[in-house]
Amino acid sequence: MRVFVPFDGREPKSRLEPVLEADERRRLAYAMLADVCAVVKETGREPTVLATDDLTPPGDEAFDVLEDVSLERDDRSLSVAVNDVLADGRQPPSPEHPVAIVMADLALVRPDTLERCLSTAGDVVIAPGRGGGTNALVVRHGAFRTDYHGTSFLDHRAIAADRGLSLECVDSFRLATDIDEPDDLVEAWLHGGPRTRTMLEEAGFQLQTTRGRVTLERR
Amino acid sequence: MRVFVPFDGREPKSRLEPVLEADERRRLAYAMLADVCAVVKETGREPTVLATDDLTPPGDEAFDVLEDVSLERDDRSLSVAVNDVLADGRQPPSPEHPVAIVMADLALVRPDTLERCLSTAGDVVIAPGRGGGTNALVVRHGAFRTDYHGTSFLDHRAIAADRGLSLECVDSFRLATDIDEPDDLVEAWLHGGPRTRTMLEEAGFQLQTTRGRVTLERR
Repeated sequence: MRVFVPFDGREPKSRLEPVLEADERRRLAYAMLADVCAVVKETGREPTVLATDDLTPPGDEAFDVLEDVSLERDDRSLSVAVNDVLADGRQPPSPEHPVAIVMADLALVRPDTLERCLSTAGDVVIAPGRGGGTNALVVRHGAFRTDYHGTSFLDHRAIAADRGLSLECVDSFRLATDIDEPDDLVEAWLHGGPRTRTMLEEAGFQLQTTRGRVTLERR
Repeated sequence: MRVFVPFDGREPKSRLEPVLEADERRRLAYAMLADVCAVVKETGREPTVLATDDLTPPGDEAFDVLEDVSLERDDRSLSVAVNDVLADGRQPPSPEHPVAIVMADLALVRPDTLERCLSTAGDVVIAPGRGGGTNALVVRHGAFRTDYHGTSFLDHRAIAADRGLSLECVDSFRLATDIDEPDDLVEAWLHGGPRTRTMLEEAGFQLQTTRGRVTLERR
C-alpha cells in the first residue's frame, strides 16, 4: 500500500492566525506532519509526503522522522496532485496495490486508528472529517478520482456511486478531527500526538472551561 | 444492560438560540432524543430516559418511539442523577449488569456505532465527545462515579485511575459529535438520524461552502 500525506508548506494553518504567529503555525504544521508520518511508520508502512515544496522542518530531533520520508513534489491543487497519483498507469490502485491519502493535520491519529482505516475493505474507503471533509481515503480501484473542494465527503460518495464502486466509511473521532481552526486546538491538546502536544504546551496554551464546550486559551 | 438517556427538557439546546427559535430548539431536542432512543432499541436494548420532567414530544408519529420508553424523573444535576443510578445498592454496575449513559443529542449515532461502544469491555468505557466531554459511558463496577462538569473526559479518566478501575476509550466520530452549537448542525445534516435530518430540512437549512469548513445556513 502506498500512503501519501499531502502537505502544503506555503502558508500552513492560516486559519489559526488569530491565536498563533506565522512561525508558530509553521511549527505546528510540521509537528502534526511528523506525528502523522510517525504513525504511518508504526503501522509498518512508509509514508510519502506529497508536498508543494521541499520540507524545511524545525531543527529539533523531534522532527527526525521527516528526514527519511519519501518526498514527491507537486505544487498543484490537492485534487489535481492526488488524481495524478490515482491515474498512474504503471500501477493503478487495486486491491493488491491500494493508494491511501492521509491528511497531514490529523494530530489525533494513532496506529490502531489508522490501521482500522487502512484495513477496511472497499473500492473506496473514507474517514469523513468534520464539516463534510475527507480526512483519510483508501482507493483500490483505478476509476476513482478525488474532488477535495467543498463537501468532499458527499462528492466522493457521489463519484464512487457514479462509477459503480463500493464505498465504506470509517467512524473515527481521531480521523474526523483535522486541526484547522482555533476551536480545534483543544482536541489536539487533549488527544493529540506527542510532537503536537509539546508544541501547544510550549506555546502556553491551557484548558479553559467556560459556558459551553471547553476550549484552549493562551496564557 | 440498563441504558439511560439523560434529557433536560427545560430549556433544551439553548446554545442554538442564534439560529433556532425556542419551539424549534425544543423540536430538535426531541427529534434527537427520539433518534437516539430508536437506535438503542435497534441494538436490542430498552432505553430509560432520565428526564428532568415528563416528556412532552411533538404530536407527530415520528415521535411515537418515545411513547413506550421507560421514564425516570430526576431534576437534579446530570452528575447527581447519574451517580444515584450508579450507587443503586440493589443492582450495582457489574460485568453482568452494566449501566450505560448515552447523551440525548448524539444525532449521528447508529446501531453499529452504539453496539461497538456498549460491547467494548472494561470497568469503565468512554466515548469522548468534542471539547473533552463524555458522550457515552459504560460502567461495569460499583466504585465509579461521574463528574460531568467541565472536561469530564479527563475527570472520568482520573476517577477511574484513582479507584483502580480499567478504562477503555471508543474512537467514534458519531459518538463524539453532540449537537450543541450552530457549527454542529452541519454534522447532523450530513450524517444525522432520520428525525433530526427531517427537522433541519423543514427548518430550511442548507449547506454553505465558504472559506474554511462547510457550514449549515438557514434560507
